[in-house]
Amino acid sequence: MTIATKGPVRVVGTGLLGASVGLALTREGVEVQLSDPSRTALALARDVGAGTPARPDGPEPALVVVAAPPDVTADVVRAELAAHPHAVVTDVASVKGYVLEELRAAGVDLARYVGSHPMAGRERSGPAAAVPDLFLGRPWVITDSGSSDPEALLAVRSLAVDLGAVPVPMAAAAHDAAVATVSHLPQLVASLAAARLRGLDDAALGLAGQGLRDVTRIAASDPALWTSILAANALAVRSVLVPLRDDLDRVVDALTSAALATGPEDVAPGTLAAIADVIAAGNAGQARIPGKHGGRQSSYAVVTVLVPDQPGELAHLLADVGAAGVNLEDLRIEHAAGRAAGMAAISVLPDREEDLVAALAERGWRLVE
Amino acid sequence: MTIATKGPVRVVGTGLLGASVGLALTREGVEVQLSDPSRTALALARDVGAGTPARPDGPEPALVVVAAPPDVTADVVRAELAAHPHAVVTDVASVKGYVLEELRAAGVDLARYVGSHPMAGRERSGPAAAVPDLFLGRPWVITDSGSSDPEALLAVRSLAVDLGAVPVPMAAAAHDAAVATVSHLPQLVASLAAARLRGLDDAALGLAGQGLRDVTRIAASDPALWTSILAANALAVRSVLVPLRDDLDRVVDALTSAALATGPEDVAPGTLAAIADVIAAGNAGQARIPGKHGGRQSSYAVVTVLVPDQPGELAHLLADVGAAGVNLEDLRIEHAAGRAAGMAAISVLPDREEDLVAALAERGWRLVE
Repeated sequence: MTIATKGPVRVVGTGLLGASVGLALTREGVEVQLSDPSRTALALARDVGAGTPARPDGPEPALVVVAAPPDVTADVVRAELAAHPHAVVTDVASVKGYVLEELRAAGVDLARYVGSHPMAGRERSGPAAAVPDLFLGRPWVITDSGSSDPEALLAVRSLAVDLGAVPVPMAAAAHDAAVATVSHLPQLVASLAAARLRGLDDAALGLAGQGLRDVTRIAASDPALWTSILAANALAVRSVLVPLRDDLDRVVDALTSAALATGPEDVAPGTLAAIADVIAAGNAGQARIPGKHGGRQSSYAVVTVLVPDQPGELAHLLADVGAAGVNLEDLRIEHAAGRAAGMAAISVLPDREEDLVAALAERGWRLVE
Repeated sequence: MTIATKGPVRVVGTGLLGASVGLALTREGVEVQLSDPSRTALALARDVGAGTPARPDGPEPALVVVAAPPDVTADVVRAELAAHPHAVVTDVASVKGYVLEELRAAGVDLARYVGSHPMAGRERSGPAAAVPDLFLGRPWVITDSGSSDPEALLAVRSLAVDLGAVPVPMAAAAHDAAVATVSHLPQLVASLAAARLRGLDDAALGLAGQGLRDVTRIAASDPALWTSILAANALAVRSVLVPLRDDLDRVVDALTSAALATGPEDVAPGTLAAIADVIAAGNAGQARIPGKHGGRQSSYAVVTVLVPDQPGELAHLLADVGAAGVNLEDLRIEHAAGRAAGMAAISVLPDREEDLVAALAERGWRLVE
């Protein structure tokens, strides 16, 4: 693959994102200059191969990538634009509107600035968690401020493509509204739900199934980082949370009525409509989430197979799927607590389902359907 | 395996759970008598092999399993106790307290009744979705009313064990409080979050990642069934939802303050504490969820590997894991929209991580860490 990004590239902030950018560019032979107020983070980023610490007498960068915490991003962008008067400057903060507003309020010329946001992350953070493939296949939002030079837009677009991401042009406000719903809202509801588990006794927790695990997985995120992100996108997040709270209020009211009734059959039918409405609205919303490769989630057939919990059994199964010539679109393993057996849910294109079922049954797999 | 359950077993309600009980017992040679007010459901259950429709002149059942919708369960249990004066009667409704209360209120002798709840289910429902292995490894809560005969408790316990489940003795109120938090709450927050996606444009949905998918997966559940479950457990669910709403109110207030400020740095530090507190509380709650085999989630090491998106590649990977002699404790495939590549996150016992990493690296796999 030919790399379009011209170096040197200066990376300011060598946490997970910055160090991953540095790793990927270094791997492609681009000179990467690293900068971070933390000497430890800087040394660690250098040690993992993300680049070399920037020197005052080093060559001028062609591109600056600001990967600082959201609340200081605008200040850092402004300083970098001033310090490197010929460089294109981008930032990768997960909220875009307020950075732009702060720069505009400070009267900064935005020709060489293009805000961006790679939709990539990990549950771990810091340079030690950096990986060059972090951006592979992820959407990378690129926001045109309206004052951005075409060359600056092209440089940031090239960076995204060179790192294996999919560039997605989007206005800052549209981006912020989108991530409020698809990223910030799930984080908050996962945290709100997981918070209820603190006081639960072990016997109750023993009844937990895959549903609870899925809903709360991302609740294991960094409080400081997320507080900063949510505060920076406060208005958009609030706009999504308020209707959610309205729905929640209706559900609580309905449950209050149901609890006061002497039995479920004594609850007036209309009382429970609020609950049914929320579940039905959830059905409709969930069905809209695109699946892998941008397709519709519902466009795959799922074949579920019982897998004995022994080394190599899952490999045998997937070898048999491969031998049947069927491409596996997605795979989910379901385990049950307290017993050594699992189920593998294999997603395939609907027109391959029949072939796969026949092939697996022939090879002696126990299909669950 | 020797089967302890004595037949005939009468299954009343041939939906997913009832038909799955019938299938599993039939497979073990136990006579199963099926009953359902819907002729279609009854015929379908018979056709999938769940048993034979009950006849008026048939032999008296030794055990009756009531698998009716939650709101009619108590009535059906009462009728079955009366109709079969020597049988043990259990039900599998997902809420237990109100069934017991209704039976007590009706003055029913509870010696032969034992309420139970297998923590098993699927996203599909009805007899066509029934599988004999539905209960394999799942907790099966068994509630002693205090008036239950030891023989009745033993019969229901034997049923759970015979079906491959793990019997969990628990009082009805403790069960209802537990499922309010580990099952009913996740369902509601998933639905509330997914409901927000209805009006979102496709570009915004294109930014969706694994977090949103995980949080909303169970939002694809049946509204009528869930309304009935939530109404039957109204008080316990309400007790969990109200503190969640209080937390949510604090977050909304904090976001309102942040949105009114001219920039993130103008928000008084204390204002955002509500957000940080909720994320931190979510950390603490999420960490308490037990992992597979009842162990702690944190007791596994995760090795992440890049997998080219071609038939057989995942099978090759897992064959190599098996060849390394390492047992895979869990597996998660991460896909990215718009690009044909995935990552496999392999959970293994911590003392096997090093061996696995070395073995996979030697075989040319690209490890992400």
